[in-house]
Order: sequence, then C-alpha cells, then structure tokens
Amino acid sequence: MQALGRHLLLELFDCDAEALNSLETVKASMVEAAKRAQATIVDVVFHEFNPFGISGVVVIAESHLAIHTWPEYRYAAVDVFSCGDVLQPQTAANYLVEQLGACRASVVELQRGIFLQAAPMPHKPSGAKAAIAKVPVTKVPVAKVPVARAPVARAPVARVPVARVPVARVPVGG
Amino acid sequence: MQALGRHLLLELFDCDAEALNSLETVKASMVEAAKRAQATIVDVVFHEFNPFGISGVVVIAESHLAIHTWPEYRYAAVDVFSCGDVLQPQTAANYLVEQLGACRASVVELQRGIFLQAAPMPHKPSGAKAAIAKVPVTKVPVAKVPVARAPVARAPVARVPVARVPVARVPVGG
Repeated sequence: MQALGRHLLLELFDCDAEALNSLETVKASMVEAAKRAQATIVDVVFHEFNPFGISGVVVIAESHLAIHTWPEYRYAAVDVFSCGDVLQPQTAANYLVEQLGACRASVVELQRGIFLQAAPMPHKPSGAKAAIAKVPVTKVPVAKVPVARAPVARAPVARVPVARVPVARVPVGG
Repeated sequence: MQALGRHLLLELFDCDAEALNSLETVKASMVEAAKRAQATIVDVVFHEFNPFGISGVVVIAESHLAIHTWPEYRYAAVDVFSCGDVLQPQTAANYLVEQLGACRASVVELQRGIFLQAAPMPHKPSGAKAAIAKVPVTKVPVAKVPVARAPVARAPVARVPVARVPVARVPVGG
C-alpha cells in the first residue's frame, strides 16, 4: 500500500489568545514552521478577520500548511499537508504548539492518496508527462444523470490525550 | 459537544488527467466550487509545478478550500474546511467530483475544534474581543524543557466505497 501524501491535523487548545489574534505572530510562526520542516515556500497568504481571527496558508512545493484561529476560544486548527520524503511535518507541528502557547494539543496523521499497490510510487516519475497525454478519458454519454453522491462519514477528530506539560515559550520576534 | 469547524477530506481517483494538469481548469473548478458552496472568496492562490501537478488554495471568509493534483496518478486530494452554518461544503465536493471527472471518490468529514460543552458556540460572539485581552496568559518559567510531543496516530484515510457510477461530465470552459 502506498500513499502520495501525509496530512497532519493539529488541534491546538488553550493557546495564547493574543498570539492567535496577531496577524504578525501567526504568520511568522507558520512561515518559520514551514522553514524548520525543510519545506520550500512558494506563496504566503494571511488574512485577519473582523472582529478577530486569522486565516492563513503557506503554499509549499510539497503541498501546504494552513491555519485558522479562534482567539475567543483560544483554539487553532492547523493542517500540514506534505508529500515526498524530505519534509518533516512533525517539526512544524512541534514548533507551532510552542509558538502559539498551546497547553493542550492533539495531532492526527492521515495518509492521502492511498493506492493498493506494493511498488513505490515516485512523486514525479520520469516519462509520466507523456503518459498523461495518453491517458484515455472515458467519455460516458450521460443524460442529466445526477452526480453520484459519496456518503459522508461523520467521524469526530480523534483526540490524542496530551499531558498538560508546560510548553517552552519562545518569544516571537516582530 | 460543539465543533467550530467542518472539514471535508476528498480523495478523487481515476480523474481526467488533462483536467488535473491544467492550471486553468483546476483553478476555475475550485473557485466555482467555492461560489456554489456559498463561500465568500477572500484570496485565490494557484501554482503549477514542474513537470506537472497543480496546488492551489481558495481562502474564504469561512476558512479554505485546498487542492493538490497528481495527474500522473489521476488523483487529487481536496480539502474543504468551513465554519458557520451558511456554507455548503458538500455542494463544493460534488461539483469538484464532476468537474475533475473522478470515477472514484471518497469523502470523510471531520469536526475540528470540538469542545465538550452543550451550549452553542457562536463563531464571533459579541463582547469576546474584550475577553481576549483579559485572558490571562500563563507564564511558566521553563528551563529548556523539550516541547511536549503529541503522539501521532497513523490512521489511513477511511475509504467510503463509492459505486462506479459514471459521473455527469460538464465541459469546463476555457
């Protein structure tokens, strides 16, 4: 079984509310987290919402990091989606726990793009570009057939209990 | 139990490889999916990677939509992260299944930011801004304590079996 991507879902609770409400702090933390994880940053987009809350994405060559903060609940949701073997998503996760002062955190890792084959699946195999052009696209004549609706499973995010260890707080520059 | 966010994780297999390799098609599909889901688009960032593959994020006021495509494997990973009651993430999911010609798809919904309280949690409660400023930040003197490492659970993405129903194909403009 092979997977193309790794996806860490971080739930950060009891964070430093001021940090979560600061565009500069959140942005700097996410960019630095990406760098520490050995990611290649392609684009950085952050927005502050009215009356509060920050949303931001660091697009990386290896996929993306995203964050949404709810300072009013001292909560932040972070996603670290990566592919390839170089990136260290857990390094980014640990750094963000620290920078945002999360007293409680859970991390769930999902594998994305699972294929049931045993052979390795190189990220960008040579010769695949030509193969793409040759992939036959099945044209099925459809007469207003409704789109197949995939049933959605409602699974609560698995909570990994984390001991309430005080986390080292490093002051964020800027 | 209350959750702040809904997160749909889409696994799109056996897609139209050409669509997955077209920056214009992927971008237009994601933007339109956001619009159809009633999202308020804040920013749009898409990149084409060498030799192939598209990554992109539509930042919305209600959180984000993200996509990463592997045309060589006819696979795309899509995330639709939303908060609030207006947005219809499944509308975006269905639209993307259709536009990218996915013959096989799975969708998993996660709840993000789960709080164990029974009372409703308004997204931006009035008066919370003042409350943020008053949240005491626990300053724990720490002497190089290592960051608490949350154990990462390795859970394969749940596969919702989807009948191989031919999906209605709407030609993508552009």
